[in-house]
Amino acid sequence: MSVLTEDTIIVGYYDDAAEASRREAWQARLQPYLPQVKLVSLHSEEAQDAIAVTVWKPPHGVLASLPHLKGIISLGQGVDHVLADPSLPQTVPLVRLVDPDMSVALGHWVSLAVLSHIRKAADYRALRARREFRPLPQREAQSVKIGLYGVGAIGAEVARQLQALHFDVTGYVSAPRSDKAMRYCHGPDGFDYMLREMDIHICVMPLTDETRGCFNQSSFAKMKVGAYLINAGRGAHVVEDDLQQAISTGHLAGACLDVFVDEPLPPSHPFWENPHIEIWPHVAAQTNPNTAAQQVAKAIHAFATGQPAQNIVDRQKGY
Amino acid sequence: MSVLTEDTIIVGYYDDAAEASRREAWQARLQPYLPQVKLVSLHSEEAQDAIAVTVWKPPHGVLASLPHLKGIISLGQGVDHVLADPSLPQTVPLVRLVDPDMSVALGHWVSLAVLSHIRKAADYRALRARREFRPLPQREAQSVKIGLYGVGAIGAEVARQLQALHFDVTGYVSAPRSDKAMRYCHGPDGFDYMLREMDIHICVMPLTDETRGCFNQSSFAKMKVGAYLINAGRGAHVVEDDLQQAISTGHLAGACLDVFVDEPLPPSHPFWENPHIEIWPHVAAQTNPNTAAQQVAKAIHAFATGQPAQNIVDRQKGY
Repeated sequence: MSVLTEDTIIVGYYDDAAEASRREAWQARLQPYLPQVKLVSLHSEEAQDAIAVTVWKPPHGVLASLPHLKGIISLGQGVDHVLADPSLPQTVPLVRLVDPDMSVALGHWVSLAVLSHIRKAADYRALRARREFRPLPQREAQSVKIGLYGVGAIGAEVARQLQALHFDVTGYVSAPRSDKAMRYCHGPDGFDYMLREMDIHICVMPLTDETRGCFNQSSFAKMKVGAYLINAGRGAHVVEDDLQQAISTGHLAGACLDVFVDEPLPPSHPFWENPHIEIWPHVAAQTNPNTAAQQVAKAIHAFATGQPAQNIVDRQKGY
Repeated sequence: MSVLTEDTIIVGYYDDAAEASRREAWQARLQPYLPQVKLVSLHSEEAQDAIAVTVWKPPHGVLASLPHLKGIISLGQGVDHVLADPSLPQTVPLVRLVDPDMSVALGHWVSLAVLSHIRKAADYRALRARREFRPLPQREAQSVKIGLYGVGAIGAEVARQLQALHFDVTGYVSAPRSDKAMRYCHGPDGFDYMLREMDIHICVMPLTDETRGCFNQSSFAKMKVGAYLINAGRGAHVVEDDLQQAISTGHLAGACLDVFVDEPLPPSHPFWENPHIEIWPHVAAQTNPNTAAQQVAKAIHAFATGQPAQNIVDRQKGY
């Protein structure tokens, strides 16, 4: 990637945590790739000159107000937080991060959730709290069927890790697929098959009109007694009241959740009181400027020079 | 494996938990391979006719009292619990379990310990208890150096799992070794190198005169500030007072232990009070009759027919 001109490239920056220190971290990481880039707060006067923006959960309406905007870069792997803006400029390309290191990190989080569950980590912690030193029955890992909903760049890495741990993984995908990586299911029948047959259900799908609310009362009812849900997709994949109900009745054994309909999870949310729900604050795959900077710089460079950018989102599909 | 005679083969059984139900479970699993086998309590009259024994932590002296003993089978992968008997018959072959499924299970436990540590699971649980929903800084997994002490049948599987999770693994072995699986260190200099350079130290060595107490005040002092110890070997690899001290001063970040000098861990042991020590009740790789039965049956068959058995322990080396 060549440096195109000596002119400063103004790029608007926003994340909902709104920390100037994060903007500075990104500025420092982008500099080696694009010395002329200047990240400015999306709310600053200078943002009016921005030719691109790097954003996480931007406030609705702001992107439409930028007169020179040539491209939008999501600071996460999902883009539902950008597409949710009804005034989002329709013709400005939207790019999402596809960072192998984030996929590895997400795979780690999922592997941790799976292993914690099958090795009864919470039960052993409870024993430890009572100073009880005794074994619990151990289910054979080979007999655990894992259903992975979503096998894109992230899901493929999650599957690789779980298979290397000798787990039996079946993937649910949106369109028919066949390769040697694993068995796949698709369509409504495939989804029902997954719900009925799998012991652990892992959601890493993008949030779209098709997937919103797909884990609901009806799907939980089809799951095996004792099934376990792991969600690293988006909170809105799950109807939270229905999950709370399915766990409270004992139909589901529990859940490990990194994402929620409302984030931060409100202090009054019933999940906090549920001992069978592990709560993580959306950190399964934190965006890492160290590893993602080159990709963001390439996208800014493409927008600044009018070249095609990589990883442009298909707005029809939503990812 | 052919059934040799119609005669009953008496095999003494003992585990320190001494549950008849476990003996019955083994009996049921061995039956399909060796219909004429009869497992009897090591303390019963019938045990005097035993040609073999299957044991976990047998009481000292009992094995020497069996007049017809042709072979000893450890119900665990380690045999230090058998070799500790000073009156152990010197010429009776001793066999240890080498069960790939136990290695997988132990790998899972180690992977769980590593992922829990680097993903700050305990810190996130503490946040959750306070209903705080906020991210903590995440260390890049690629920068974590993992030292694996012991690369036999078990260690090799542990390494495979950790490498599949993209961790950088270095193995410590007793004799020079070189292959493509990983980097190896050996000898006192190699041991020192491991102590100084690694971030996470994982012990899966057999307990021998050489390895007893190898993690002690002197070794902890050589470790990096913030290093983490995972022990799935034997409790006596670690000088427990020294570990408690190294963690209390903050030099070590903590430890995850499955094994202890005294098991069950006594209620008054200081480890119970230490929030930086994860305590598991020796379940990293529980012996599973379902997967180990064929191997045990083969060993009994070999002893009964005077054929050489597999996985015979070298008593000089201690494994």
